[in-house]
Amino acid sequence: EDRPVLFAGPCAVESFDICMEIGSKTKEWAERNGFSYVFKASFDKANRTSSNSFRSIGMDKSLEVLQRVGKELDVPLVTDIHESYQAKDVAEVVDVLQIPAFLCRQTDLLLAAAETGKAVKIKRGQFMAPEDMQYAVSKVRAAGNDNVCLTERGYSLGYHNLVVDMRSLPTMRQYAPVVFDVTHSVQQPGGQGGSSGGQRQFAPFLARAAAATGIDGFFIETHPEPSKALSDGPNLVPLDKMEGFLEMLKEAWEMGRKYADFSV
Amino acid sequence: EDRPVLFAGPCAVESFDICMEIGSKTKEWAERNGFSYVFKASFDKANRTSSNSFRSIGMDKSLEVLQRVGKELDVPLVTDIHESYQAKDVAEVVDVLQIPAFLCRQTDLLLAAAETGKAVKIKRGQFMAPEDMQYAVSKVRAAGNDNVCLTERGYSLGYHNLVVDMRSLPTMRQYAPVVFDVTHSVQQPGGQGGSSGGQRQFAPFLARAAAATGIDGFFIETHPEPSKALSDGPNLVPLDKMEGFLEMLKEAWEMGRKYADFSV
Amino acid sequence: EDRPVLFAGPCAVESFDICMEIGSKTKEWAERNGFSYVFKASFDKANRTSSNSFRSIGMDKSLEVLQRVGKELDVPLVTDIHESYQAKDVAEVVDVLQIPAFLCRQTDLLLAAAETGKAVKIKRGQFMAPEDMQYAVSKVRAAGNDNVCLTERGYSLGYHNLVVDMRSLPTMRQYAPVVFDVTHSVQQPGGQGGSSGGQRQFAPFLARAAAATGIDGFFIETHPEPSKALSDGPNLVPLDKMEGFLEMLKEAWEMGRKYADFSV
Amino acid sequence: EDRPVLFAGPCAVESFDICMEIGSKTKEWAERNGFSYVFKASFDKANRTSSNSFRSIGMDKSLEVLQRVGKELDVPLVTDIHESYQAKDVAEVVDVLQIPAFLCRQTDLLLAAAETGKAVKIKRGQFMAPEDMQYAVSKVRAAGNDNVCLTERGYSLGYHNLVVDMRSLPTMRQYAPVVFDVTHSVQQPGGQGGSSGGQRQFAPFLARAAAATGIDGFFIETHPEPSKALSDGPNLVPLDKMEGFLEMLKEAWEMGRKYADFSV
Repeated sequence: EDRPVLFAGPCAVESFDICMEIGSKTKEWAERNGFSYVFKASFDKANRTSSNSFRSIGMDKSLEVLQRVGKELDVPLVTDIHESYQAKDVAEVVDVLQIPAFLCRQTDLLLAAAETGKAVKIKRGQFMAPEDMQYAVSKVRAAGNDNVCLTERGYSLGYHNLVVDMRSLPTMRQYAPVVFDVTHSVQQPGGQGGSSGGQRQFAPFLARAAAATGIDGFFIETHPEPSKALSDGPNLVPLDKMEGFLEMLKEAWEMGRKYADFSV
Repeated sequence: EDRPVLFAGPCAVESFDICMEIGSKTKEWAERNGFSYVFKASFDKANRTSSNSFRSIGMDKSLEVLQRVGKELDVPLVTDIHESYQAKDVAEVVDVLQIPAFLCRQTDLLLAAAETGKAVKIKRGQFMAPEDMQYAVSKVRAAGNDNVCLTERGYSLGYHNLVVDMRSLPTMRQYAPVVFDVTHSVQQPGGQGGSSGGQRQFAPFLARAAAATGIDGFFIETHPEPSKALSDGPNLVPLDKMEGFLEMLKEAWEMGRKYADFSV
Repeated sequence: EDRPVLFAGPCAVESFDICMEIGSKTKEWAERNGFSYVFKASFDKANRTSSNSFRSIGMDKSLEVLQRVGKELDVPLVTDIHESYQAKDVAEVVDVLQIPAFLCRQTDLLLAAAETGKAVKIKRGQFMAPEDMQYAVSKVRAAGNDNVCLTERGYSLGYHNLVVDMRSLPTMRQYAPVVFDVTHSVQQPGGQGGSSGGQRQFAPFLARAAAATGIDGFFIETHPEPSKALSDGPNLVPLDKMEGFLEMLKEAWEMGRKYADFSV
Repeated sequence: EDRPVLFAGPCAVESFDICMEIGSKTKEWAERNGFSYVFKASFDKANRTSSNSFRSIGMDKSLEVLQRVGKELDVPLVTDIHESYQAKDVAEVVDVLQIPAFLCRQTDLLLAAAETGKAVKIKRGQFMAPEDMQYAVSKVRAAGNDNVCLTERGYSLGYHNLVVDMRSLPTMRQYAPVVFDVTHSVQQPGGQGGSSGGQRQFAPFLARAAAATGIDGFFIETHPEPSKALSDGPNLVPLDKMEGFLEMLKEAWEMGRKYADFSV
């Protein structure tokens, strides 16, 4: 059966309670709309613009929270790793290891992730031509791991600005399933002085557009109070909008899949 | 009633017969799928990469053909003008004057078009921020003409390449109705040495994506034999694909309109 | 003898007195530093962001002022034209016809300029790959006019921002002599809402860098009171800095020419 | 005394003999032209496009070679690190730790480098606005290490292409000394299918231009037989051109420094 995947959750593991609030509601809405749901939260924000920004409640503590959330909600988990030494420990907790966009060319990190046997989700670098992502996929496959997908999250269009080149979605689908990252695609890197800004208002437009091309899944960060989120607040989808967002996305996705193979 | 507009036809006025072949079929398919149809053809390709390329069968002859096509098919007409002196004569034949993308900042041209009283369709320059198109619209309105729309056709993303920033569609809809140019959005300027290349294979993906954002119309160039078209062959939609293309587009458009006001 | 050309003057023909003040001083400093001087001023700002901005004191009046300035100072003149019908009249007054960047692909305008027999100076479009400027040069040469040069003024690097790709200078010198436009290279198109902004502070850095590559001339707009200039104030070089600017530029230019043919 | 720094050597530690051949000649030419010389070679190419490309002769072996070269030539050493665990071991051998461009936002890597007490040289990411590099510098300084410099190596201008925005040099010099990377600035990422291409022919032009802005040093990779180099062959400066290159660079640098504070 053909169902879209939804990777969603808070940006960072802020606390068990917030993770549960977000995860339980999102799971319900996701399932009602026919998405396969994977809970997402970062255990460490390792590349914040400034070192004064929030990073983590601690790696061990974060992983523990993630594990509890996964069990309580009975859902698979995804989180991102930043150095190869983290792969093994993190893989004991989560089902999908995400490779951050800046790191999509780091061979050791890709290999370490691949060797855990868990699924590997690679974000396209903001500087990478879509067709060059085939080499990142090949690095994972060459390590014997075929469970790999790619994620689109915007390309540098001048300073402090990203553009989503929708051509990248069908291009990358030649190599692996493709997920659209709704939240980071409307980020404005470094656009607020010492931190990144965002344009939440464009999220529904870009999400529908990406869905319409015919893809495999979506990645959305959400929070009950975006202005209090410890990172990426300006580009999060508010939790109270998620239900409607998923309904809309499902309809757009169905149209996109129906015509995904229409060629001229 | 809310219907999408379709501006479509050959790139250039090649001959009366080709115009009629394209126009009659496209009109039928457009109407069957609920589009308001406007026949499009250029009377002069005034900015070809090289002066060895085809320009025109002659301005007077082209306008005469256009006029006959409009009458025979009973459809409105659109064509583009390049210098202000052309506005008046052309306006006697067509219903919509199109301002080419490179020329979207030329005040005299915008004013000359506005003053004819005909509708003015302005293409966003490949170098213009979406929000700056409000000034082009204001120039037309200040001349007393409120019948103006904007067209998206891609932004320069490095040399010989364009990207469609889907954010530009809702941004420009704040100022005027917005049309998506399917054909030139997959152009590769100067990408074939002395002429422009194209990536027809991406046309259905970008067209669905643009439609999904919720817009007002589409612009498509088509030809029964794209490889023999006198310009823009690599990015035209083949005529025998147009029927399916319009069916698909209508469905994508309906989904896009349904959610055009969904905000987060 | 190998001398750099300097095209310099106010952005627009504001008045005879201002033209004379700027022209007489600039001529003196240019000659003292070994530049061939050409007085520059626009008779019409035909593509302002907003139609509320200053355009002109009138085309006829402007040309008359230009002519008087040329005679009084005994210097050649350059100005820009925007539609083909202007070429002939303007060519009766000036020695060099400049084709604006947005219009560098308009075949009729290039031909009309070429056919006057006057020198033709073509600005590279903010959207044109450097190597594609060869076709603009060819259009002029094909009309029998060999007196053509190219000008660099920055490429679109995202919205409201230009970058000077210094590779464009040696690339374009393969086709024709190359002039660096100091003033518009630090423009920020539409960067101030309804008008363009600028980053005057970078002008000396970019000018030295361009000179160091080994080029043929420079284009600089200047004004005794930039904040009162009727256009492009934020990116003008103040007149009281021009003497030092030209001294610096001459030294950079000499170094650049010395090594222009050094290859690896 | 004000002298430019020269970081130069082969791209990778290919062998002791090649390192000595390159290092001994480059040292001689560097000193003759007044540069402070630092020998450069990578012990591991950790982010090659494809995993089939050469990476390393082994980390331990490479560091051993580097150490011998440093002693024999009596010169300081620079090499790049890719994960934080490498910082300490590598710092025992080299004097300057280089942070790769893709990794310039990885807080842990910056901190690990800073904490060794060695000099830290950070390359600007191909996706980072120049002014945002101040945060990378701050991360190092906040760890108590003031010996930090920045390096320019081009910004993404569309796919498979980099542009050097010369404005970044004076912008980044507000935060730390700035080095221009001649070799990677003419790289074409992924431009040759499974590996990166290069445009060596532009290296002298960009190097003179960067020097003319007024900077602190240069980074150049060189090889006696570029076509046999194990990485970055298409953009290396051939060893037999280095003497002339350094002479030229010194002259351009002197001009640039003379006018570095000229403002308008």
